[in-house]
Amino acid sequence: MNGNSDTLLDGLFVSPAMREIFCDRARLQGMLDFEAALARAQAELGIIPADAAARIVSHCRAEHFELVQIATATTRAGNPAIPLAKALIDAVAAEDIEAARFVHFGATSQDAMDTGLVLQLRAALELLETDLQRLGSALEELVHTHGKTVLLGRTWLQPALPVTFGLKAAGWLGSVGRARERLHELKRRALVIQFGGATGTLASLGKRGIDVGNVLARELKLALPDLAWHTQRDRVVEVATALGLLTGSLGKIARDLSLLMQWEVAEAFEPRVPGRGGSSTMPHKRNPVGSAAILAAATRVPGLVATLLAAMPQEHERGLGGWQAEWESLPEICCLASGALMQALQVVQGLSLDPARMGANLASTRGVVLAEAVALALAPLVGRAAAHALVESACQRALDESKALLDVLREEDEVTRHLSTSELERLCEPSGYLGLSEELCARALAEYRRIARRSEV
Amino acid sequence: MNGNSDTLLDGLFVSPAMREIFCDRARLQGMLDFEAALARAQAELGIIPADAAARIVSHCRAEHFELVQIATATTRAGNPAIPLAKALIDAVAAEDIEAARFVHFGATSQDAMDTGLVLQLRAALELLETDLQRLGSALEELVHTHGKTVLLGRTWLQPALPVTFGLKAAGWLGSVGRARERLHELKRRALVIQFGGATGTLASLGKRGIDVGNVLARELKLALPDLAWHTQRDRVVEVATALGLLTGSLGKIARDLSLLMQWEVAEAFEPRVPGRGGSSTMPHKRNPVGSAAILAAATRVPGLVATLLAAMPQEHERGLGGWQAEWESLPEICCLASGALMQALQVVQGLSLDPARMGANLASTRGVVLAEAVALALAPLVGRAAAHALVESACQRALDESKALLDVLREEDEVTRHLSTSELERLCEPSGYLGLSEELCARALAEYRRIARRSEV
Amino acid sequence: MNGNSDTLLDGLFVSPAMREIFCDRARLQGMLDFEAALARAQAELGIIPADAAARIVSHCRAEHFELVQIATATTRAGNPAIPLAKALIDAVAAEDIEAARFVHFGATSQDAMDTGLVLQLRAALELLETDLQRLGSALEELVHTHGKTVLLGRTWLQPALPVTFGLKAAGWLGSVGRARERLHELKRRALVIQFGGATGTLASLGKRGIDVGNVLARELKLALPDLAWHTQRDRVVEVATALGLLTGSLGKIARDLSLLMQWEVAEAFEPRVPGRGGSSTMPHKRNPVGSAAILAAATRVPGLVATLLAAMPQEHERGLGGWQAEWESLPEICCLASGALMQALQVVQGLSLDPARMGANLASTRGVVLAEAVALALAPLVGRAAAHALVESACQRALDESKALLDVLREEDEVTRHLSTSELERLCEPSGYLGLSEELCARALAEYRRIARRSEV
Amino acid sequence: MNGNSDTLLDGLFVSPAMREIFCDRARLQGMLDFEAALARAQAELGIIPADAAARIVSHCRAEHFELVQIATATTRAGNPAIPLAKALIDAVAAEDIEAARFVHFGATSQDAMDTGLVLQLRAALELLETDLQRLGSALEELVHTHGKTVLLGRTWLQPALPVTFGLKAAGWLGSVGRARERLHELKRRALVIQFGGATGTLASLGKRGIDVGNVLARELKLALPDLAWHTQRDRVVEVATALGLLTGSLGKIARDLSLLMQWEVAEAFEPRVPGRGGSSTMPHKRNPVGSAAILAAATRVPGLVATLLAAMPQEHERGLGGWQAEWESLPEICCLASGALMQALQVVQGLSLDPARMGANLASTRGVVLAEAVALALAPLVGRAAAHALVESACQRALDESKALLDVLREEDEVTRHLSTSELERLCEPSGYLGLSEELCARALAEYRRIARRSEV
Repeated sequence: MNGNSDTLLDGLFVSPAMREIFCDRARLQGMLDFEAALARAQAELGIIPADAAARIVSHCRAEHFELVQIATATTRAGNPAIPLAKALIDAVAAEDIEAARFVHFGATSQDAMDTGLVLQLRAALELLETDLQRLGSALEELVHTHGKTVLLGRTWLQPALPVTFGLKAAGWLGSVGRARERLHELKRRALVIQFGGATGTLASLGKRGIDVGNVLARELKLALPDLAWHTQRDRVVEVATALGLLTGSLGKIARDLSLLMQWEVAEAFEPRVPGRGGSSTMPHKRNPVGSAAILAAATRVPGLVATLLAAMPQEHERGLGGWQAEWESLPEICCLASGALMQALQVVQGLSLDPARMGANLASTRGVVLAEAVALALAPLVGRAAAHALVESACQRALDESKALLDVLREEDEVTRHLSTSELERLCEPSGYLGLSEELCARALAEYRRIARRSEV
Repeated sequence: MNGNSDTLLDGLFVSPAMREIFCDRARLQGMLDFEAALARAQAELGIIPADAAARIVSHCRAEHFELVQIATATTRAGNPAIPLAKALIDAVAAEDIEAARFVHFGATSQDAMDTGLVLQLRAALELLETDLQRLGSALEELVHTHGKTVLLGRTWLQPALPVTFGLKAAGWLGSVGRARERLHELKRRALVIQFGGATGTLASLGKRGIDVGNVLARELKLALPDLAWHTQRDRVVEVATALGLLTGSLGKIARDLSLLMQWEVAEAFEPRVPGRGGSSTMPHKRNPVGSAAILAAATRVPGLVATLLAAMPQEHERGLGGWQAEWESLPEICCLASGALMQALQVVQGLSLDPARMGANLASTRGVVLAEAVALALAPLVGRAAAHALVESACQRALDESKALLDVLREEDEVTRHLSTSELERLCEPSGYLGLSEELCARALAEYRRIARRSEV
Repeated sequence: MNGNSDTLLDGLFVSPAMREIFCDRARLQGMLDFEAALARAQAELGIIPADAAARIVSHCRAEHFELVQIATATTRAGNPAIPLAKALIDAVAAEDIEAARFVHFGATSQDAMDTGLVLQLRAALELLETDLQRLGSALEELVHTHGKTVLLGRTWLQPALPVTFGLKAAGWLGSVGRARERLHELKRRALVIQFGGATGTLASLGKRGIDVGNVLARELKLALPDLAWHTQRDRVVEVATALGLLTGSLGKIARDLSLLMQWEVAEAFEPRVPGRGGSSTMPHKRNPVGSAAILAAATRVPGLVATLLAAMPQEHERGLGGWQAEWESLPEICCLASGALMQALQVVQGLSLDPARMGANLASTRGVVLAEAVALALAPLVGRAAAHALVESACQRALDESKALLDVLREEDEVTRHLSTSELERLCEPSGYLGLSEELCARALAEYRRIARRSEV
Repeated sequence: MNGNSDTLLDGLFVSPAMREIFCDRARLQGMLDFEAALARAQAELGIIPADAAARIVSHCRAEHFELVQIATATTRAGNPAIPLAKALIDAVAAEDIEAARFVHFGATSQDAMDTGLVLQLRAALELLETDLQRLGSALEELVHTHGKTVLLGRTWLQPALPVTFGLKAAGWLGSVGRARERLHELKRRALVIQFGGATGTLASLGKRGIDVGNVLARELKLALPDLAWHTQRDRVVEVATALGLLTGSLGKIARDLSLLMQWEVAEAFEPRVPGRGGSSTMPHKRNPVGSAAILAAATRVPGLVATLLAAMPQEHERGLGGWQAEWESLPEICCLASGALMQALQVVQGLSLDPARMGANLASTRGVVLAEAVALALAPLVGRAAAHALVESACQRALDESKALLDVLREEDEVTRHLSTSELERLCEPSGYLGLSEELCARALAEYRRIARRSEV
């Protein structure tokens, strides 16, 4: 732990597990894992002595290195892999000067940095997938439980037709499913080692380069790509775009909840946790802290994704500026996505709803949101045009005179001639005009389970 | 990409076919295709009269509508689907007032706009995939032809070890393959109809909503998703991110070419086309016009992708502002990606190389880029440390005294004691230190063919 | 008028006057204005014959040129200024072959394009400043009129303390004032000609370059900068950033209004315009069309600003890709800002408020938002700690038992011992706890007027 | 720029002084400075006891607080100002329970956070202005020294006409001047306190709010704005945009230098610092480490600026998500701008040039870049058309036959008839065709000095 600027805010924006994956030590360890696996692979293939490899491997632990010293040298070298390799050589040489010559053999600093990054990304994806699975389960539960919980559907922030809360949650669930599917698919492209030597030809390993690559990849449980991708960055930038999509989808959940949680709406609430979202001078306050953190992430990630995309046209065999622009941006995206996911999980798992208030809000529209239902029922009886006109004028009266649409309709002879009071009551009942909400929830659940099976972590 | 201002520049930035896919008329036609298919589906299911459907279908042709009139009404309505539906109703009603009642039945304006967009995206993806296939073929050809064309590998814009032009092209090819794979995968998620009615419940269709959805999807040759996705935008924003990755990869090709084309480097050139890239006052000028257009696209697309990601947290059942932000941004990304691809295709297909200059540039480094080869050869003979020291000092002398490394080495007794002149000459020959360039090219070609088979258009 | 993709949506997103400033014809005219002024300047200085200049000037009208032909040639030339200059030469030569030699004399194509752009930007800024002035006046009116219109202040989308609508509008007004100030300031840097010749040295004009620059600038009523700024883009990108700030501030107005316009809040409304924001199947709908368009602009402009910033590091004397990335992005920002401003003007000028509903919403909090007022009054009487505890528990009871805070307080002996009923009534009256709302409104008005005087259009 | 992960890379991307300004402790201290000044102001005005104020002030030192504890509480509270105020109250209460009641009196947490931020920004701007002044001086020196150092001007990455290095540096200098001017101007808007209480009305201070604000502002040496700007973010986002422009301009310097430093160009070099930019296996490498770091910053800042612009439409009296998105983004921009400036300063101060190589590169064009000069000289003698044709064909021969233009011209009777050998030699001498390079350098220096005087730190 050091005194950097964002420790203070990490609790809001980053999951602790993700912070650990992307701390300085872990960055070093990722590179050291590469160096250790490289030595093991070369020893296995008889390229370097087994003793030397063992010696090298024994030193590949981040806690053996002085972070500040490597940081200082990074400023001069231009990247941290160069001073780290030097420090590793020094450490090995202190015990066995001959073994030291085999450190980092045939590799370039970007091989170590990129492979280290991929190892971090693998851990990050595992964490995200696990949390997505948990969020998916919590949402499945909501869909199940609230398949008949009726509330106002809202479009343009205005009342439209009634929906169910289950259907709303089903929409959220769908986006989680697709996020899982995307992460599952991209791993084939992204979870590969970087191994090419100075210009991607593996020249210093003679004819053994691909053999080494194969064993190295096996050691690290990553795939060996066709080629080094030093300046072909789409493999890792795709991770950023997928997390951009995920964070946007989580932002959608937060947007909905923060709107539902407004005092004047008051239909859904983030969990009440002591000390969370309160205000000492305003005891009634119940601030949507989780939603705010998620929305902040959804606001920040797009710009970071743009940075990575803009950095893609990198020069020749290894780039200048573009690659460097990735070093903090991609970890930041992972951290923000993890934080948004952590907050979403807490909020969804502890969500409390107020179905009574949902009903009251629906009622406050005095039934005008059911105009369509009444018009559809009248159409076969009076003709579609007349039905539409009748209902439109009734709605206008309901709004102007602050009456229920039902009451207005019951005063219209042209309506009561065709529809009985009980029929009108049925038509003006929101729960009677939910369309296929239940079937759609069932479809969403089935689709999610299908994806979940295929994207099993 | 605002209306009138871009005709002038379209030729540089947009492929003509993509411009047609995303012109105003095509936007109207996409919505009209939805309306026509909806009528046909409802007629097939007996929900509306077959006659009415036929009448509606007959009017669903963009050229029948007055664009300016719909544009004017869009300003008031807030989206173009509302006035278009009204205009369609009027047109049908002029012939058959009863049929007019069945226009747009059970749908909401966003159903028409989003499905229309997906139809446009399908055409866009087909176009891009076809052009990607052509670019892939042109790059395969380059990899084949230039597997032994040696040039300087460059890192940090500085000379590093030699590579082959085939390997460089193989890197470009790899990114094209992955782009094809991504487009292939996302179609399953993106090429779906939008159909939910006002709040996604399909309420006005009673129990027939999903049946209608199924036939509607079949009519349009799209898939029926589990749910309406009015405010779950990841399906279409994913298209934007994939095109962002593609444009970035094309930008990488352009970056390399524009650097290789510098007067002082002069190793590769965009095709010489009369009137292209010249200057009347500077007759020697040969400007990389294609690369400039590609780099412009690679600079512009990231911000547009960020816009779409930032717009994702949309409100409730249909959003306010976020959805509207997509309307021009997603088409613009498709247009820019298509233009970059068109330019890349022209540039790669007509690329001319100067292998002699490549050799001369390599020679200008006086062999110091082969220091590693010499040191590796000396190591078993004098020890690794001594080998490294010998070579390093020889390089320094070569640089300081403007001599060839080979000549310096031949003056070093400690070297000549162990290595003959012919051995030294071999070691200082760039084509002898290409590592696995050929094998890697073969791997890249094989990988590309594997992807190509799976992603067949 | 042509069939491009966005004419359909222009009415929502772009002001008609701004569309005219940035149409293709206007782009050509901007370049032609440069060419004409250049000829006039050189004639005035005796560098070219007066006759030739007159002939050239007479042809510098965009309507004389075939747009499609120039567009086609642009594709080859890489920018539209090259074919336009050729077409101008041809047109002049058809009448006077000698005069044709003096067209575009000493200039480079970027001189024409950039100066043309600056002329367009000048018109754009004038338009924006005029509309900002009108918006400022409309907001001043709101501040004046609603200095005592009380409504809930909301933080984190939750009720906080009462405010006045005047104060809310004063906040909006402040941002308009600062936007005017910024536009006023940047004009000194941005409204300059571009004039440098091929590499900025004005070499072909011998020693007369600066003289020509001075007259040219005077002719165009622009300033002559110290140097050409072919690859120093901060002058024009600053315009983009200022419009980014402006659009964000307009987005704030739209955010507030769309939230206030929610059915459940219903305190403020966009103007009711026939056919605007309605829905045929949902007669009660009153969609915030203007706010949606503004929010769409506020979502789109940031990515475009990022594009321009990312394009700034342009190569050497004239760039490759970065400059080209500006050509459509900067006009698009101007268009979107103008559209947002046009919509804001309409919305603010026609805004309707419902003070009764504001009162009712305040009342719905049962007075708990005034807890602070009561606690402050009690503190001197019972001690601050006791006061705070008393009020906090009273609030909790009010919330739990759905009672008014006033009624709860009147049942508390410890309270009534110190405060009379009328005192309690006064304390629980929202209009009594508005702090300095009126003074702050007055300050805001004064500050705005101060800025307005200094930034007079 | 997330906490732990960046220590390792800070040396490359952030100036140490800026890191200190934006570390966690400094964030706390900024808020504590607000609390202390608030207490002092209220004591001065007799609103709270002087003793209490003194007690409060004595505790307002960041090192007195347990960072981890506040970080943990931040997660629940939603922002760090709430737990910090509580911790301050606890600390004061431990000594004087009565004084503790006056902590944070009348303020809201955002008042403390925003004012703290402004204090940090003030320090950041001072640092940046000082460094800009130093960079300006270094560039003035370059302009002075290299007013006659001739090199190829390059457009589209191709040779154009000759320029001087002084003129190139003058372009860089101009952007530094305008950056200083912008920072100077925005301080009036940005360096203001935030002080409004819960909803900006200052209600809990009765009629004393503005008085307190005035003294508070005086205490902190900031200005008192007309209103609280809790959700009017343009004041601080403008800082981000100005730094975005600055970083883009620094990126331009780095772009130029990294291109000039290419092996094949080799005209300018970053300073040679032991251990900087080298490679152990490639002893000839001299990597442009500084330029890479600057370009990385110029790639990253645009996305962060877009984030802040996108976050501007904040809700009502205090926002949800947008404000939170600023907390790390604005500091990150300051850090990256400072790092880019630090690197630019080092690079420019230690820049080494190779005028001989500049001449050789110019010579390598065989004089064709001077075609314009020859044509202008011939025009009065043979007519402009004939002159142009003669020179164009001579250039083509020079390029095709690898001859010097001068030699080709000397073989052309039509040329030698009019121009003597010595005249031709003069025309083909690059230093003779520099136009107004010297005058323009002088203009740039004068303009910079004018700005510098007005923007004195």
